[in-house]
Amino acid sequence: MSEFSHLDEQGNARMVDVSQKQDTERTAIAQAKVRMKPETLKAILEGFVQKGDVLTTAKIAAIMAAKRTSELIPLCHNINLSHVDVEFESDIDNGILTIRSSVKCVGKTGVEMEALVAASIAALTIYDMCKSVERGMVIEEICLLYKAGGKSGEWKR
Amino acid sequence: MSEFSHLDEQGNARMVDVSQKQDTERTAIAQAKVRMKPETLKAILEGFVQKGDVLTTAKIAAIMAAKRTSELIPLCHNINLSHVDVEFESDIDNGILTIRSSVKCVGKTGVEMEALVAASIAALTIYDMCKSVERGMVIEEICLLYKAGGKSGEWKR
Amino acid sequence: MSEFSHLDEQGNARMVDVSQKQDTERTAIAQAKVRMKPETLKAILEGFVQKGDVLTTAKIAAIMAAKRTSELIPLCHNINLSHVDVEFESDIDNGILTIRSSVKCVGKTGVEMEALVAASIAALTIYDMCKSVERGMVIEEICLLYKAGGKSGEWKR
Amino acid sequence: MSEFSHLDEQGNARMVDVSQKQDTERTAIAQAKVRMKPETLKAILEGFVQKGDVLTTAKIAAIMAAKRTSELIPLCHNINLSHVDVEFESDIDNGILTIRSSVKCVGKTGVEMEALVAASIAALTIYDMCKSVERGMVIEEICLLYKAGGKSGEWKR
Amino acid sequence: MSEFSHLDEQGNARMVDVSQKQDTERTAIAQAKVRMKPETLKAILEGFVQKGDVLTTAKIAAIMAAKRTSELIPLCHNINLSHVDVEFESDIDNGILTIRSSVKCVGKTGVEMEALVAASIAALTIYDMCKSVERGMVIEEICLLYKAGGKSGEWKR
Amino acid sequence: MSEFSHLDEQGNARMVDVSQKQDTERTAIAQAKVRMKPETLKAILEGFVQKGDVLTTAKIAAIMAAKRTSELIPLCHNINLSHVDVEFESDIDNGILTIRSSVKCVGKTGVEMEALVAASIAALTIYDMCKSVERGMVIEEICLLYKAGGKSGEWKR
Repeated sequence: MSEFSHLDEQGNARMVDVSQKQDTERTAIAQAKVRMKPETLKAILEGFVQKGDVLTTAKIAAIMAAKRTSELIPLCHNINLSHVDVEFESDIDNGILTIRSSVKCVGKTGVEMEALVAASIAALTIYDMCKSVERGMVIEEICLLYKAGGKSGEWKR
Repeated sequence: MSEFSHLDEQGNARMVDVSQKQDTERTAIAQAKVRMKPETLKAILEGFVQKGDVLTTAKIAAIMAAKRTSELIPLCHNINLSHVDVEFESDIDNGILTIRSSVKCVGKTGVEMEALVAASIAALTIYDMCKSVERGMVIEEICLLYKAGGKSGEWKR
Repeated sequence: MSEFSHLDEQGNARMVDVSQKQDTERTAIAQAKVRMKPETLKAILEGFVQKGDVLTTAKIAAIMAAKRTSELIPLCHNINLSHVDVEFESDIDNGILTIRSSVKCVGKTGVEMEALVAASIAALTIYDMCKSVERGMVIEEICLLYKAGGKSGEWKR
Repeated sequence: MSEFSHLDEQGNARMVDVSQKQDTERTAIAQAKVRMKPETLKAILEGFVQKGDVLTTAKIAAIMAAKRTSELIPLCHNINLSHVDVEFESDIDNGILTIRSSVKCVGKTGVEMEALVAASIAALTIYDMCKSVERGMVIEEICLLYKAGGKSGEWKR
Repeated sequence: MSEFSHLDEQGNARMVDVSQKQDTERTAIAQAKVRMKPETLKAILEGFVQKGDVLTTAKIAAIMAAKRTSELIPLCHNINLSHVDVEFESDIDNGILTIRSSVKCVGKTGVEMEALVAASIAALTIYDMCKSVERGMVIEEICLLYKAGGKSGEWKR
Repeated sequence: MSEFSHLDEQGNARMVDVSQKQDTERTAIAQAKVRMKPETLKAILEGFVQKGDVLTTAKIAAIMAAKRTSELIPLCHNINLSHVDVEFESDIDNGILTIRSSVKCVGKTGVEMEALVAASIAALTIYDMCKSVERGMVIEEICLLYKAGGKSGEWKR
């Protein structure tokens, strides 16, 4: 089980020791999708064009959560993020709102979890703000798209 | 846009006023799935049988996050949860680990978001603990399965 | 010094014991003002009309901070808020942006501090978002406007 | 609207990317004033001379809040502070208690918001501890007094 | 293992379901002791008499931590405390500073952990503030002294 | 009182200014002991062998609390930890469960408080999980065992 860096030889959970790692610039991009009825998505986007409160609220929630990732994910190191961004893309015909988050830091450990937390919390915030209209919305395909920096280098989906 | 309880007439984000709502028992059940290679799932489950640290860590993370939902989701009310539970079910052949969270409170507002946050954070914790083995894992089908209590009553997927 | 409910006979800080108090509906309204150059305010408001991100971000920050008041103000009780609202009013000629927050709970203790924290954090968020344009902005007249509920009843400025 | 570093070309809220910025020593000094009746201030100061609980509590609250600024102000970077200090100055005749906070870090981004949060939370804590005596106290003139470090260099009110 | 209310039949960690429990008044008193050289204790107490900052800071830290117990202890319910108090007693000859915390709530679950967290964090804060003088200080005898309320009723050490 | 680095000349609480300190690797090891009946310890350890939930939960709680030390201990600097580890050792005959925590960072300030917080929260979590079986458990001998790094160098109990 030695490939699991978060488990020791006996299978105990552990936090990786990054003391000896270099401070390098690290980037991660993640996504989440929210699937809903086309008319719900249209209502969000009309709001987007006029006032943008659903998407702005989701973006703010995502940025704030990314900064607190180490409070949520037990074995994540607490690190200082140098950038968090969140973008939205909509496919009205199929009722899909795609969230794309990107996170950067200059540090000893990667920011994959921060990007995934940002995308997830953005999706959950959208669910929260629209659940009175469509309780059956589904969040899908939360995954890492890209990472760079650190010893393991670049990775692309 | 009046059906969106989290937006006012002008489309501004708002927190719903629940002052007049009754304290009733409320329940919500949500799920999330983590899709991975069958051999990754087998490794987690062997750990599960022996020491359980991946799943126990995910469960603890989920319970702790559920209690802090209102810090993550901007327009959620802060409420006192009377119960949070998280269960796991595995389908090795298809490489699917299903997380099922259930949350209860006696209060003025539902616990759907708490259940969804619990399931999401459990899934993200599993991703974190196994990403050194399989970075391409995908989190899928985060959704509400059931809710009961409050004025809107029972809802089932 | 016995009138200071947060100090005991010897002048020691203390948290008031509210165990015997009734759960009643309580309301508080507070304000803060941000004074800036008329052209800075105009730029915010044009943003407001088009996209609203400065004011929406300030509003979200205020609501989230109100819910966490007891983590910031040492002797505040942690309570469940049933409503938080934040409104903005602008006086372009004088370069004054007024923030008005209102908070409600059904509980054993008032929500004055929650309303004041909400107004203050909204003002600080506006400062943060506009400081690259006008570092000299000043936050003024943070005060309670109104409270109701509890043994001490109604109070108006 | 390009001067607003916290808004992009379309007026969307954004977190500034500081990945390329140098780690330099940065300082910020901010103030807040609490205006009250001279006799309320006298009572606080007598407490100050004897036991100091009002001002010590306000100072502790300010230091703790400064460290958590990035949890309160949505677009602030989370950074490690190397110093926070809070001082008080009183003008009994005019019933003015002035709070002066100073914050330092060695990092990629300034600490203006941390200093402003510290001063504001100190003022709000004083309000909380004295509101049973004088509910009408007003917090005034929260502003930046000085900053140094980083590309934009020194600034003085 | 069925007597462990925090473990299920299979030994899995679980949060107790308190949905059906009554809201009753609950009290808990806990203690912690800090053992140090008599001269260190004398220095703290002289500070206590004059300015009190070590003990006041410890008390504030204890009250603030008690309110956040459910964020620290994974299976604790988040509840609203109606009172937290912390007292100090010193035995200079033996170099023992005793901390006594008492916590109350009106709720569905006891406040033993809140009282123990308060006493522990007070002790750790005293250690922190005095460690430059005596790094070898030891915290001892953290334990529950008394509890009342709820189905299990009164308990005394 | 000048030896107390956390108090100024007048005995006021203060945060030490570490701006001029070097970033060096720092380590601290701390312990806590939980004293209980041998049969309670046996039940925990049987759980440990089979499922480990009591000790795994305590370990996760300890790691998460260590990362948040600066939110709990008022004058601690917020720093990025590079490693946290928690180990358990049991003496069934005497009913003693010993917790040993070790923490590392590369930074301007030591990690003694982080190690002590980790050990304390692990002990409190064990108390919480076993209190339904033995409410009279006592936490003992919380102390620093070792520290290295920084200007004051190595220290051993």
